[in-house]
Amino acid sequence: MAEKQNAWDRIVNQIRSALERQKYKEAVNTFLEPLLGDQVEVFNLLEDEEQALLLEHLNVGATADLFDRLEDSETLEAAESLSIERLADVLEEMQPDEAADLLGDLPPEQASQALEEMEDIEDVLPLLKFPDETAGGRMTTAYIAVRRHTTAEMTIEFLRQVQPDDEVPYYIFVIDPRGRLVGVIGLRELVVAKPEALIEQIMDTDVIHINAQEDQEIVAQVMVRHDLSALPVVDDENRLVGVITHDDILDVLAEEATEDVYRLASVGDAELEPESPVKEHLKARLPWLYLNTLTALMAAWVISNFEDIIAQVAVLAVFQSVVAGLGGNASSQTIALFIRSIALGKLPSKGVLGILGREVMVGLIQGIAVGMIVGLGVYLWRGNIYLALVLGAAIVGNLTIASLVGTLVPLVLRSLKQDPALASPVLVTAATDSLGFLIFLSLATYFLSKLK
Amino acid sequence: MAEKQNAWDRIVNQIRSALERQKYKEAVNTFLEPLLGDQVEVFNLLEDEEQALLLEHLNVGATADLFDRLEDSETLEAAESLSIERLADVLEEMQPDEAADLLGDLPPEQASQALEEMEDIEDVLPLLKFPDETAGGRMTTAYIAVRRHTTAEMTIEFLRQVQPDDEVPYYIFVIDPRGRLVGVIGLRELVVAKPEALIEQIMDTDVIHINAQEDQEIVAQVMVRHDLSALPVVDDENRLVGVITHDDILDVLAEEATEDVYRLASVGDAELEPESPVKEHLKARLPWLYLNTLTALMAAWVISNFEDIIAQVAVLAVFQSVVAGLGGNASSQTIALFIRSIALGKLPSKGVLGILGREVMVGLIQGIAVGMIVGLGVYLWRGNIYLALVLGAAIVGNLTIASLVGTLVPLVLRSLKQDPALASPVLVTAATDSLGFLIFLSLATYFLSKLK
Repeated sequence: MAEKQNAWDRIVNQIRSALERQKYKEAVNTFLEPLLGDQVEVFNLLEDEEQALLLEHLNVGATADLFDRLEDSETLEAAESLSIERLADVLEEMQPDEAADLLGDLPPEQASQALEEMEDIEDVLPLLKFPDETAGGRMTTAYIAVRRHTTAEMTIEFLRQVQPDDEVPYYIFVIDPRGRLVGVIGLRELVVAKPEALIEQIMDTDVIHINAQEDQEIVAQVMVRHDLSALPVVDDENRLVGVITHDDILDVLAEEATEDVYRLASVGDAELEPESPVKEHLKARLPWLYLNTLTALMAAWVISNFEDIIAQVAVLAVFQSVVAGLGGNASSQTIALFIRSIALGKLPSKGVLGILGREVMVGLIQGIAVGMIVGLGVYLWRGNIYLALVLGAAIVGNLTIASLVGTLVPLVLRSLKQDPALASPVLVTAATDSLGFLIFLSLATYFLSKLK
Repeated sequence: MAEKQNAWDRIVNQIRSALERQKYKEAVNTFLEPLLGDQVEVFNLLEDEEQALLLEHLNVGATADLFDRLEDSETLEAAESLSIERLADVLEEMQPDEAADLLGDLPPEQASQALEEMEDIEDVLPLLKFPDETAGGRMTTAYIAVRRHTTAEMTIEFLRQVQPDDEVPYYIFVIDPRGRLVGVIGLRELVVAKPEALIEQIMDTDVIHINAQEDQEIVAQVMVRHDLSALPVVDDENRLVGVITHDDILDVLAEEATEDVYRLASVGDAELEPESPVKEHLKARLPWLYLNTLTALMAAWVISNFEDIIAQVAVLAVFQSVVAGLGGNASSQTIALFIRSIALGKLPSKGVLGILGREVMVGLIQGIAVGMIVGLGVYLWRGNIYLALVLGAAIVGNLTIASLVGTLVPLVLRSLKQDPALASPVLVTAATDSLGFLIFLSLATYFLSKLK
């Protein structure tokens, strides 16, 4: 990849130099040389003003291709620098699903002006009514549909005439007079069929499909489960309204994965990147730190109840954080397992008690394994067997609690139809911290005379 | 999805009851009713002994289809219950890439016996030499290749004769006499081309391809960047050796995402699931807890140097954990951002200083925002302005350090060509914990007289 990176950097430098010398044509030609996927990388490496300058001189088709492939937030930024007329032209050339996303992201006034300027809005209009993260929001209206009494030969001739572009899926859908989905046929089956065969003879009537209102995470699960490269989308009357293609699903999977990672790390916006403006960092991260502040002060309040004990045996302050820290780490493990398992649609809804039991067993064994080691270490270090025992026992207790809480919170959230990934470690460690301190300091209070 | 789950449960119960009544044919027929993707879900819901019993009576083709779609570890488990003869038959029917994976996972003796029994190993043999997680390990050898002087019509006729199955990609590759990749043509272009057109006239010579030794994460990045549904794999002499298809890439993306989530949460095995045996949980999780034990004791050692201070002002023990906890949370945020950005191939290799600067700025601002609130809260609670100031200042310092260390560790790992995801929060929080305690307790020592 280092090679690639160097190639991109070289192209960026050439474009930059051409723009500086006001040789716009040269800049555009240099930009268009590499493949579209690489153009996207190069575009992202340019500064904002350079991007705007380049777009001013790029033709409509190339701009549309680029916009189709940029991240939504980057498309929005780039689009805002265009005039309304030009924006309308570009929107017409874009893939309908991407155009609809962009129209949805634009400020309402700019979007409605652009829509007014556009000549052909038939493809985009039906997509505007679905939220971005549903099947309807992800689908494209660029698909091929035929009727069941067509022959294979006629269908191929039809394809020759419409010359569908690269983004149209490799499937031909079959609809009845009311537009309801009744079958599907792969381009390959079409090609290898006898020319005079009727579509209804060669079509597959067992079409896996999805309702337009379904969440994109479910879309991804269905496509992965059935290894689909295209999934037809229907409305409540089973009428075909669009198709989700494999490239959309790649985006969905990447987004959902980032969301899981970020949730686990208390970052609230799946589109945040290291290069995002400081303001966006604060918006996505600071609220979680404030929540953490609250839970940390709660745990501090637990400790404050033992202040006089700590004043008598200051060594407790040395080791209380070991108990809490291990509990936090152990509960993160549990949460990660459940978040992924639920996200991939793998966690059975039955047998939950068995899974909970197993996880608590793991917590208990890990607690004993770690508690013994820490106890031994602390005995060797401080020479007080009671301190070692209290610490070891607190670790066993807290790691067991960590497994229990780390399992219960995502499961309960799921059964309440909430996103289990909301089970942020911040909330679960609130429990493990507070309870960890409580167990350790309570035990210490009980054995106080032996610890002094 | 609840609907689906119910349907699966109903089928599982029917199969279970048929197996109990030793009506094996009925069990098999019930199992084969739903679509393949659903069969996989149903199979996973059966107990181990039920799975073995069902497989005994399932025909070879259906078993092969099932094995193609199960997770690798589940395929292995199911395969081990088969006789060598039956296993060989199933392996021949499986997709070459999945068969090669299974052969690589089986115990060496069983694998070589099965290979001996197999009649046709031409497709599988070349795949055995590549590690699972490389392009070569992921590719299939089931693809269609033609020579440049063939016509469109001849190619379609060729397709009619070989009747490629569903797993063959929707692309036809063009090779020269030495087997080197020279072009590609989509099935759609083939269909819409004039029948007498030569392949070399309609093929695309700009073929995006990848070396068989490349890591699967790079494969995923290239396919996502260029929106590919199939990626040809070549050897060092540029000879076409296989193709990676869209369903493989979905698996790669899901695996890599799970790996990121697990790394962040200190779970060492991306295949671990809540239902995995306790032994596997311990193998994947306990080593990380031991590492955490070490870092926690290190932080405890830092505190132990301030024992006499804490004995004088026990309230310090109440608030030290607030400083450390916030630092740990903030550094997780930073690590998550960089792990994802690097995994998606988005982090530029240039301008690293700028990114570091921005992240430290975010840390500083978050430190001030949180430090002020905590300081205020603690002043209201305990009425000691010095305690509030010391605590607030320590938080500002520790959150800035969290951003700095959380950025540096993944970046340094990347520049050392190590996996940046090794920058486990365990290691980074070792720094934020120790330094957090150090800053807070040092400041407290300095202002000791004001805190008593």
